[in-house]
Amino acid sequence: MTRIQHVTLIVDDLAACRDFYVDEFGFTERRVEGLDYPGAFLVVNENQELHLAELPDGPPSFRGHFCLRVDNFSAVFHRMKELGILDVRPWGRIRELPGGSLQLYIRDPAGNLVEITSEPEDRAGIDEAIFTDQLYGGEPYRYGDGSV
Amino acid sequence: MTRIQHVTLIVDDLAACRDFYVDEFGFTERRVEGLDYPGAFLVVNENQELHLAELPDGPPSFRGHFCLRVDNFSAVFHRMKELGILDVRPWGRIRELPGGSLQLYIRDPAGNLVEITSEPEDRAGIDEAIFTDQLYGGEPYRYGDGSV
Repeated sequence: MTRIQHVTLIVDDLAACRDFYVDEFGFTERRVEGLDYPGAFLVVNENQELHLAELPDGPPSFRGHFCLRVDNFSAVFHRMKELGILDVRPWGRIRELPGGSLQLYIRDPAGNLVEITSEPEDRAGIDEAIFTDQLYGGEPYRYGDGSV
Repeated sequence: MTRIQHVTLIVDDLAACRDFYVDEFGFTERRVEGLDYPGAFLVVNENQELHLAELPDGPPSFRGHFCLRVDNFSAVFHRMKELGILDVRPWGRIRELPGGSLQLYIRDPAGNLVEITSEPEDRAGIDEAIFTDQLYGGEPYRYGDGSV
């Protein structure tokens, strides 16, 4: 079965980005011997990893991203808002998708865009405060009201 | 459990990229009602998707990428070589990683970088011709000999 095994992000400060993903999402670092560049291999789950590489590249994509589906969306929302890294420019406001999955976007410390969604079956447990937040209000699959 | 649910690539020609991933990797398109931009949601497996969006953005990342682990690596190698889209510049030549997974990189029609790896347990079935190919020869985790 074909599967997405990892995503590799280019970062400008490896320690800052590693700390962000370890501290905020609980990923654990897998030691790799022999890397000849500043890098970190983070374990997302038993089948998936997130790799970080501090190497020259262009600026991060404005709209390209990967999506982490989490089982604690409400806590992630409040924490990302506290950190001030929610980004509604590329794809619009926080919204509920058909099926009941909540969706938000953040920028990591290197400027990479990350989508966060909830498990649809967790819809009943979503903090109601999210639906009255000033950043809430996007329509599913309507992105044309973005600011760019 | 947190998991990578999808990757979203920005493309300059939606039809060309959709055809590429459908034809070459067997992904199937999931119909989505109400998208207000040219996009395609491709099903990788029951837990993962690849989303394509034809929207303005910067140039594709030179080194940033996602990795597809496939169960027909040898066939993918020969096909990608035939298509002329193997790219050894960002991360070096085709190589065998510790554990027995084979690794190569390609550019999709939009210029997005995609890593392809084999299941380590499939090592015995890898076509021996790959190991004598002119594009083979990278050391695991040694990337400094790249051309950029």
